[in-house]
Amino acid sequence: MIDRVLGDIDADLDTALSRLFDWLRIPSISTDPAFKGDCRRAAEWVRGDLEALGFEARLSETSLHPVVIGHLPKPGAPHVLFYGHYDVQPVDPLDLWEVPPFEPRLTELQPGRKVVQARGACDDKGQVMTFLEACRAWKATEGGLPVGLTVLIEGAEEIGSRGLPEWLLANKDELRADVALVCDTGMWDRAVPAITTSLRGLVYREVVVRAANRDLHSGSFGGAARNPIHVLARILADLHDSSGRITLPGFYDGVPETPPEILAQWKGLGLTAENFLGPIGLGVPAGERDRMVIEQIQSRPTCDANGILGGYTGEGNKTVIAGTASTKLSFRLVGDQDPDAIGRTFEAFVRERVPADCSVEILGTGGSRAIQLPYGMPALAKARAALAAEWGSEPVTIGAGGSIPIVGAFKRTLGHATLLVGFGLEDDRVHSPNEKYDLSSFHKGARSWARILEALATG
Amino acid sequence: MIDRVLGDIDADLDTALSRLFDWLRIPSISTDPAFKGDCRRAAEWVRGDLEALGFEARLSETSLHPVVIGHLPKPGAPHVLFYGHYDVQPVDPLDLWEVPPFEPRLTELQPGRKVVQARGACDDKGQVMTFLEACRAWKATEGGLPVGLTVLIEGAEEIGSRGLPEWLLANKDELRADVALVCDTGMWDRAVPAITTSLRGLVYREVVVRAANRDLHSGSFGGAARNPIHVLARILADLHDSSGRITLPGFYDGVPETPPEILAQWKGLGLTAENFLGPIGLGVPAGERDRMVIEQIQSRPTCDANGILGGYTGEGNKTVIAGTASTKLSFRLVGDQDPDAIGRTFEAFVRERVPADCSVEILGTGGSRAIQLPYGMPALAKARAALAAEWGSEPVTIGAGGSIPIVGAFKRTLGHATLLVGFGLEDDRVHSPNEKYDLSSFHKGARSWARILEALATG
Repeated sequence: MIDRVLGDIDADLDTALSRLFDWLRIPSISTDPAFKGDCRRAAEWVRGDLEALGFEARLSETSLHPVVIGHLPKPGAPHVLFYGHYDVQPVDPLDLWEVPPFEPRLTELQPGRKVVQARGACDDKGQVMTFLEACRAWKATEGGLPVGLTVLIEGAEEIGSRGLPEWLLANKDELRADVALVCDTGMWDRAVPAITTSLRGLVYREVVVRAANRDLHSGSFGGAARNPIHVLARILADLHDSSGRITLPGFYDGVPETPPEILAQWKGLGLTAENFLGPIGLGVPAGERDRMVIEQIQSRPTCDANGILGGYTGEGNKTVIAGTASTKLSFRLVGDQDPDAIGRTFEAFVRERVPADCSVEILGTGGSRAIQLPYGMPALAKARAALAAEWGSEPVTIGAGGSIPIVGAFKRTLGHATLLVGFGLEDDRVHSPNEKYDLSSFHKGARSWARILEALATG
Repeated sequence: MIDRVLGDIDADLDTALSRLFDWLRIPSISTDPAFKGDCRRAAEWVRGDLEALGFEARLSETSLHPVVIGHLPKPGAPHVLFYGHYDVQPVDPLDLWEVPPFEPRLTELQPGRKVVQARGACDDKGQVMTFLEACRAWKATEGGLPVGLTVLIEGAEEIGSRGLPEWLLANKDELRADVALVCDTGMWDRAVPAITTSLRGLVYREVVVRAANRDLHSGSFGGAARNPIHVLARILADLHDSSGRITLPGFYDGVPETPPEILAQWKGLGLTAENFLGPIGLGVPAGERDRMVIEQIQSRPTCDANGILGGYTGEGNKTVIAGTASTKLSFRLVGDQDPDAIGRTFEAFVRERVPADCSVEILGTGGSRAIQLPYGMPALAKARAALAAEWGSEPVTIGAGGSIPIVGAFKRTLGHATLLVGFGLEDDRVHSPNEKYDLSSFHKGARSWARILEALATG
């Protein structure tokens, strides 16, 4: 039975790609109000595809972009909730893209290695379509799915799933399921699949420092007038000490030590600074000096400025002292770190460093906690076997550095355990120019889901 | 005689303004290659006006924008060289301008106080025209000027007079003069004129730090990958200590202590933090803790970041770690500080703070030394008397925080003493949005020059 389903996926690959390309052409950038209409178009596109698959599907409004919700029940069978998102990251700097970000194409990177290039090729449209193509093959060959299914595709994941928690609360009755599936994570490498069992949390803030009431000529005012760029630089510099630790008081409260046996397993993976940082042109781990690279990216919290802007940044020289400067920055959280407490401590830390005659505005609130999924959940063992069968390699159980806000919301609101399986690769340039998704991820990803659906149907 | 000249300036004011407006409409931004043609148009405009005044004038090429040079000799009379510039600063951020920067208009700020609003209204088109209008009135009423005159208007002052020193050297023979006049400085306040006798030097650099070979997703790489924004923040934070002193080794070599009698005079001027910083919305002097505000802006060297850019700076959140970040910054020099030595020390200071797997590019070279003009030059006494007669107030002798590269070049290349008289005001927003020039500066500035020309003609 599964062989027929897998054979259909193989035979249908070109058509599957053209469906994905149609979706990728819609610039559904959720953070930018200019693309609000495109976000809705991307949502309508999924709704149409779900209806073609036999789902009863609709758009449902949130405070921002609509979610797409579709149901295809199967009485007597386990019920599964699948989650993905149709929104994508902004594309700037546009001049670094080798192809226009919303004109997807299939490129042969090297002999035998084809990739889909486009914004969203991996995150998350490509990943979502691996699942929907698996469903399509089940329907085409077996007349239906082996499980009951609810599909939820949201449009604000890239901006912290704004509006979704409230929507989940209001619609929790129609989201009942035995297990939730999320396809927004990565493989260990091109040959070895992975199941993600922990996710870092996130606190994101923008700090705007205002000094003089206008930009000043540094010749007239330099020396006496406060420079807000220097105020920001001091704040950012003070956030780390010379050993790479974050200096916010109480920041490490709730950060667990990784058990020795897990550390030993991680050591065995052979993730060195050279092989992790080498491909991105770096070689010296930037985090805490006494931690392995794999700890720095998986089990330790971080702080990174994501952007900074102030003064004259055009061509040539301008001797100006800016009136205003701003930075966006984020903390990745682990274990039991409390995003609200860290937000408060950070605000105090910033305010202490702003001179009396300047003002500061801190934008953003709240944040998401880190997530640890139960190792003993039955779906985990089933997915592990299905992935091993598809890839010929035992999947690795990993922690992910990024956060997927929905996972916490699922747990809090619906009580679901969530299974995180995805086929992204480290060089997919998710959130960067030239995002891509390997054709092997797309093709074998769909085959993997076909197998996982079969596995979840069995008791 | 002088009364007829002054009367002509009074009678001709409206026409003089319309001439200035014509010039201001040309967006001669020298730093931006997109405005290269406009720079040439602005040069042609001056050449035309000089010819209308009876000068033999031409454009002469430099390595960048052309200079305008005009001669009107008067055998037997002292010969004067007047310098100004036709180029202007960039106008960004454009959305902060109350009027389009190249559509000049006359606005009544408060009853009886009219100002010309436009980029270049003060710096330096408005200031240059005070001098040319004085010449026009002499010619209209007396048939000619009381002195021989060479006028040199360059087009790269706002970018450090690039190309001019070489041009001066190649054309020094036709620049011989008894004294040089520069109109690019300010008054003490709206009622009290000033003669500037010292100018701070300038070292300007851009620092580009490159870390990863592409922008990274902070969820995947955060903690292990070096963030170039943090590298820059550390460099900027390290440049000042907690007392406001600049930490570059040897930076204060050659900085003279101001003589006690001058300090006493400065104290008497009553320039407090409140009245200097209050109008720009500040109140706490940012410079060295143990120095008066007037020292911080006149006699002490400074270091200011003029711009910074890195990562995501658009609307909303993006969890990216930038591959590259950059800052522009400048040092203002005093006394005998050596711009080349400071440039070298700064470069070493930066390179020490760039991690081994990152690279840094430092753009810009050289710089200008600070200038101290001789207190005993005869032209100084003559200008002082002329200004006192016009304004009814003894002029103040001040140091200026900004640098005017030409003054050093004049001294080195031509051996000229230079008299710096100008009518700018502290709230002119030179280099900022909403630049303006008081109508009183324009009108009484022209009258002042008419008087100074008369004074310089006498032995």
